[in-house]
Amino acid sequence: MLIASTERQRARLKGLVADDVLSDADTLAAHHAHAVWSCLTEPGDGVAGSLIAEMGPVEALEVASGAGGSTSAALEAGRQRWRARSESIDDAVDRARRVRAQLVVPGGAGWPAAVDGLGVHGPRALWVRGSLDALRPERAVLAIVGARASTAYGEHVTAELATQLARTGVVIVSGGAYGIDGIAHRASLAAGGETVAVLAGGIDRAYPAGHAELLARISSGPGAVVAEVPCGTAPTKWRFLQRNRLIAALAGATVVVEAGWRSGSLNTAGHAASLGRPLGAVPGPVTSAASAGCHRLLREYDARCITTAGEARELLALDSADLRADADRVDDSTRILDALSSRSPRSTDDIARLAGFAPGEARGLLALLEIDGRARRSPDGWRRGPRGR
Amino acid sequence: MLIASTERQRARLKGLVADDVLSDADTLAAHHAHAVWSCLTEPGDGVAGSLIAEMGPVEALEVASGAGGSTSAALEAGRQRWRARSESIDDAVDRARRVRAQLVVPGGAGWPAAVDGLGVHGPRALWVRGSLDALRPERAVLAIVGARASTAYGEHVTAELATQLARTGVVIVSGGAYGIDGIAHRASLAAGGETVAVLAGGIDRAYPAGHAELLARISSGPGAVVAEVPCGTAPTKWRFLQRNRLIAALAGATVVVEAGWRSGSLNTAGHAASLGRPLGAVPGPVTSAASAGCHRLLREYDARCITTAGEARELLALDSADLRADADRVDDSTRILDALSSRSPRSTDDIARLAGFAPGEARGLLALLEIDGRARRSPDGWRRGPRGR
Repeated sequence: MLIASTERQRARLKGLVADDVLSDADTLAAHHAHAVWSCLTEPGDGVAGSLIAEMGPVEALEVASGAGGSTSAALEAGRQRWRARSESIDDAVDRARRVRAQLVVPGGAGWPAAVDGLGVHGPRALWVRGSLDALRPERAVLAIVGARASTAYGEHVTAELATQLARTGVVIVSGGAYGIDGIAHRASLAAGGETVAVLAGGIDRAYPAGHAELLARISSGPGAVVAEVPCGTAPTKWRFLQRNRLIAALAGATVVVEAGWRSGSLNTAGHAASLGRPLGAVPGPVTSAASAGCHRLLREYDARCITTAGEARELLALDSADLRADADRVDDSTRILDALSSRSPRSTDDIARLAGFAPGEARGLLALLEIDGRARRSPDGWRRGPRGR
Repeated sequence: MLIASTERQRARLKGLVADDVLSDADTLAAHHAHAVWSCLTEPGDGVAGSLIAEMGPVEALEVASGAGGSTSAALEAGRQRWRARSESIDDAVDRARRVRAQLVVPGGAGWPAAVDGLGVHGPRALWVRGSLDALRPERAVLAIVGARASTAYGEHVTAELATQLARTGVVIVSGGAYGIDGIAHRASLAAGGETVAVLAGGIDRAYPAGHAELLARISSGPGAVVAEVPCGTAPTKWRFLQRNRLIAALAGATVVVEAGWRSGSLNTAGHAASLGRPLGAVPGPVTSAASAGCHRLLREYDARCITTAGEARELLALDSADLRADADRVDDSTRILDALSSRSPRSTDDIARLAGFAPGEARGLLALLEIDGRARRSPDGWRRGPRGR
């Protein structure tokens, strides 16, 4: 099923891509292969990503189906999990066609180059209802995310920020969820702006169901509803986390408006920081649990304190020196991760010594890694966390 | 009047110092000279401070009265302004005795060594009602300051912080003002803690008058009401600013709870940063003008975001690496000030080049200097501000 004739490829992608894609055999094969990869893999599958980066989507697919390629344990494991989904492509494209979705693939027309920052963990394809024009490189794109359990304060601030930003041409990306996300989308639409909702499941189903009308309005343009998983895919915990990385990667910067102490928005924030993208957090009353995550970002993540739309816009315009500093921080995180073991707990001082940092620096970086699950704190020291590699 | 006989000195200081000070001629002379200096000078008089640092208070006083010493324009100007106050000492000590104040001098018993961080701009003496025991070096001393125009939110947070900190033995220093300061003192007292109120005018008069009872309670111990200006001195704008520097210098760290965009608390915060002492700010709703100054400290001053008493306590325990970084920042500020002219405006890029910083770094440092009036921004560039040297 992975290898299909040109005719079969054309039938599958009809209506999902521009006609000129259908008429050129090589372009068609590449689009088709990307679509198949999108169906075979879970988001963030680095084995698939590496294979595709190495040999292109078409040849990589041949290797996936068992033909050639160097054999490694990782590749073998990949083949097995991909094979389990080899039947899903036809259903996915049928569903996509039914909702008039478009298929956008790496390097193809409309592909948002910003996501290439994810490297081999980037999306294999994007399934789109509406238009990704708003994500062209020259546009200012800001992610505004936050808690579903938002307060009137958070909703007010979100509406103010999104309205003023949308009026000045900033594209608002968010996750389509209840609470802060929904307000960000609605305010952007109301201000005549462009907004993009990134879903964790297939774009053929509205999630959450209560946002069906909102998502329909977004996808009717000029913005879009988008997902990397194919139509028919249910949202799962893992896919929500990976959706968060996609939000962070699509935007030039991320602002968290309200977030509880363990909010998923902190995960989005962690991805933004890992990508070296500027991160902002809106403060709130210290008495409000809905702002605790934002304060955590200010304290432990060195997020910028955002109080106005102007300050949010400044995030997008941070000069290259600042971005270099952020990029350094990514390297620093890697050094700390290298010094962590998944089994033996280590003291901050030991980790500092191993990674070549001052204890104070190591402490800050460990706190950062703890937030997104890459490091784990216990009474006897630090270990590598569940997401630490 | 500046040079007095031992008998005269003893009569003046009787009741204001311990008996063993009165019985040793040299110790008495030194205490007396410090007291006289405190009467002659405005807070922060660096000419007097340098003279005293160079030759000790007694000889410096002889030089001040015209006897010997190298002659310089600064010294001549000093002599003139000091001479204008040479009659004030007797009134000051009489007033002090009437309110049972104590005189505490540099290097003498009870002198809080923390203020020596102010160098030649430090206080010449401290006039105390109550006891400075709480300011012994081994104690944890935190300044909690904020707007007079506080909100219910700010008052609630201040009361929570001060109560919890006082219960765990932290000494709270503040300015005795209405609003945040008053709540910090009251909560500390109610929790059985020690609190020190630093006044801009003489401690013989309650300022503000509405806090007469509160100040009386504080001075009845175990804390103190303290000022560097002698009794009988009215609070002035300058003395309020200098009082703020004294609050910052007496404390190991400073936390600003609520502050308007141009609040005097930012001045205290600026002094804390200049002294290399950790600085914290409590966030609040971005919709509250009373929190705008705190957000400014978070954004422009790199203040730590403080949401709990535990986090405030952590400020006091910042490790030496962090403190070294803060001290570096003081040196950095000096380099930027060196690159500023009071007359010709200069661009950020020029200043960065002159001072040897990256433009992004220079920008941050200039913002910091702007807050406490040491740099001034105009459409055509940066100048040295009214307080920039």
